[in-house]
This record gives sequence, C-alpha cells and structure tokens, in this order.
Amino acid sequence: MSKKNIQPANSSAPQFDSHFHEAFRELVLWRRDVRRFRNEPVNVDLVKSLIELSTHAPSVGNCQPWRFVFVESNHRRALVKASFERANQQALEGYEGDQKKAYAKLKLDGLDRAPIHIAVFADEGTKDGYGLGRQTMPETISYSVVGAIHTLWLAARMHGLGMGWVSILEPEIVTKALKVSHTWSLVAYLCLGWPEENHLDPELERHGWQDRRPFKDVILKR
Amino acid sequence: MSKKNIQPANSSAPQFDSHFHEAFRELVLWRRDVRRFRNEPVNVDLVKSLIELSTHAPSVGNCQPWRFVFVESNHRRALVKASFERANQQALEGYEGDQKKAYAKLKLDGLDRAPIHIAVFADEGTKDGYGLGRQTMPETISYSVVGAIHTLWLAARMHGLGMGWVSILEPEIVTKALKVSHTWSLVAYLCLGWPEENHLDPELERHGWQDRRPFKDVILKR
Repeated sequence: MSKKNIQPANSSAPQFDSHFHEAFRELVLWRRDVRRFRNEPVNVDLVKSLIELSTHAPSVGNCQPWRFVFVESNHRRALVKASFERANQQALEGYEGDQKKAYAKLKLDGLDRAPIHIAVFADEGTKDGYGLGRQTMPETISYSVVGAIHTLWLAARMHGLGMGWVSILEPEIVTKALKVSHTWSLVAYLCLGWPEENHLDPELERHGWQDRRPFKDVILKR
Repeated sequence: MSKKNIQPANSSAPQFDSHFHEAFRELVLWRRDVRRFRNEPVNVDLVKSLIELSTHAPSVGNCQPWRFVFVESNHRRALVKASFERANQQALEGYEGDQKKAYAKLKLDGLDRAPIHIAVFADEGTKDGYGLGRQTMPETISYSVVGAIHTLWLAARMHGLGMGWVSILEPEIVTKALKVSHTWSLVAYLCLGWPEENHLDPELERHGWQDRRPFKDVILKR
C-alpha cells in the first residue's frame, strides 16, 4: 500500500456490508477486560502485527505519540506487581462494610499469568505534529494513545486473544521501573494472553459491582 | 440479548474469520478525521444507534462516564465556532515563516457544514463504578470516554459517515455554552456528516505537515 494515495479519492474506498456491520457489533460487544489467562504462549509476531495496525489510530496533529514497551524482565514485572498490590490494598481500605468485602473478592489484574505485558506511554515531548491541535487541550496527546490501545484491544479480540488494562498502579513507580524517557507518561499497562473464558457481560457487572446504565441517560440535546 | 450471560462461558462466543480480519484492517486504515462534508442530512436515529454501540466500549470500574450532547441550537454552534476561530488564530501566531504559511492553509474543522455536532463529556462526578480502578490514575475516566469516541468513529466509517474531532477549542467556554453539569469535563467536540471524499492517508500527511513514523521506532523491550 503506497504511502501517498495517488489514486483519485473515493476510487478504491471500501464498502462495508451488513454482514460486516453485524460482525463488528459482535466484536465490540464481546471485547472484555480479561484477567484470567490460560498458561499458553502467545506469538509475539502476532502481537506486533496488531500493534502495527493500532498505530493507524487517529492522533492529534498526526503526532503518533504512542510508545509500546514489552516488559519481559522478571525483575521489572515483579516491581509492577508489587505496585499493583500496594495500590490495590490502598483502594480496598477506602471501602467499608459489604462493599469492602465485595471489592476484596474481585480479580482486578492478570499480571501473574499473562504471557505478554505491554506498558503504553504517550511521548509528551515529541516534536512530531509540531503541537498542532493540542494547544488548548493538551490532554489530546494521551487521548491519541488511548485510540491506539482501543484498536489493539479490538484487534486482539478478533484473533481470540484476551487483553486486560491494569490501572491500579502507581504510574511514577512503574515508569521509573521501566527506565524510559522522562518525556514519556504512562497511559496503560496491558496484559495479553489466551483467555480462560469468553463472556458477553463485563466481569464487574457479572459480579454485581456495577450494572449497565440505561442508554437514554447518556444522551441529551442543547 | 440478555443482560446477564446465563449460558456457559464460551458457548456462543463468536469467531472472526480471515475475511473479517482483512475488512477490519481496511476499516481502521480508511478511518479519517473528516472536515469536508456534503450538504446532505444525516439520519439522527442512525447516529444514535452508533452511539449506543459505542457505549459498549471499556470503562474503568464499568463506570460508563460518557455523556453525548447533540448541539442543535444555532446560537450555541456559533459560540463553538467563535471559540475555534480564537483558538486557531492563537495557534497560528505560535508558528513562524513557512510553517505559519502551511498552518494557515490547513482546514482544521468542519463546523460550518457538518449536519451533526456532538460534544462528548466525561462525568467526573459519577458515582457509578464507585471509584474502582481510578484512585491512582484518575485520568482513566476520560480515557474511557475516548474508547467510546473511537468506537463511534469506526462505526460511523463503517456506514460511510465521516467524523471529525475538533480539539482547537477553549474547553471551558464550550462547556459553559452548553450548560451541562459542573462535574462534566469536555473530552471531544465531534462533527459528523457524509464526507466529500474518502482517503487512505491522513490529511496532515497528504498536505505535508507530518509524515508517518517508522513502526520500529515506537516499540521497545525492557
């Protein structure tokens, strides 16, 4: 595929039929935050090809600020796990009574079993894009990285791979453990692997933590 | 589709074949930030159905913080356009020489022609999710909204609809103009409509502002 689209616009734009529409809906509905992985290896080249696709996500000013760090060292993985344990314990202490008991029973990470760990950063110091589009809303640089992560999530699910986003972490400690540029800020820590189970409903809904909101409540007019 | 998945896990999990893989890749590659719209109406029910799908995006603690505001009043649209003009003028003044000339030639919004305007907010004050997963990384609440926006973007493209994300805005002024809850923070202002053209390459690449980065530069190991 050539980098410059020298053909007339529209000439080769794909059409997506109703079968694709339905399958895409299924993909979105069956994407889950996976925390239970089978003890089987994952082909790293497959994951890299999914990340490559994810780098076609939108980015503010076309600055492509996503940086993907495969965390392979056992020592670094242990530092991340310890950070999760501290942050999770602290979160637990913020709840009381039945809610505290419910929180304690939830499985909120898959760090132990996941064969692939990827920390995803936004390079806030990038010169790419020359600052276009992010003068008044600088947070759009990390939002761009989230679009890539979401693309990766859907692409992984499409191949039957499970992905989980661990956000119960101390971002400064994780960043320091991974020895990356001081201009990079942590957006997400991802676990990937083959899931033990597939579900249509989110784990936090299934376990009674938080139900689905009525759709009518999230739309209004002005 | 029942809310609780009472069937055994895996029993009805969909498989996605190689034809879908290829079509999904095309969808990601042909999604564009659209700023040039045809002067034709868009069925609002279609847009609402795409938003409904987007609310199946991941959210931290399952808190579903996305709030979609259809901006229909001409007065409010004019306030948003004026905010864009001010922010864009200020951004222009930050560039010099050839870059300033290049910036001045870019079309960075489609506010005038787009039949549908949607402001998307994160409700930072929501009790839903009970704060789970966002104690140490509170920005994950707005990241959840970005996942929904990206789902909407892909779903719109799948139907041939164009979407553009306008980030050159003064978020406080836009929020005030739309008279929403003080706990809501603006994540994105979206324009939707039928695109004049379809392209495989981003507009900022085609117009020489910012090229594609080599993939190898965004991956590393630790």
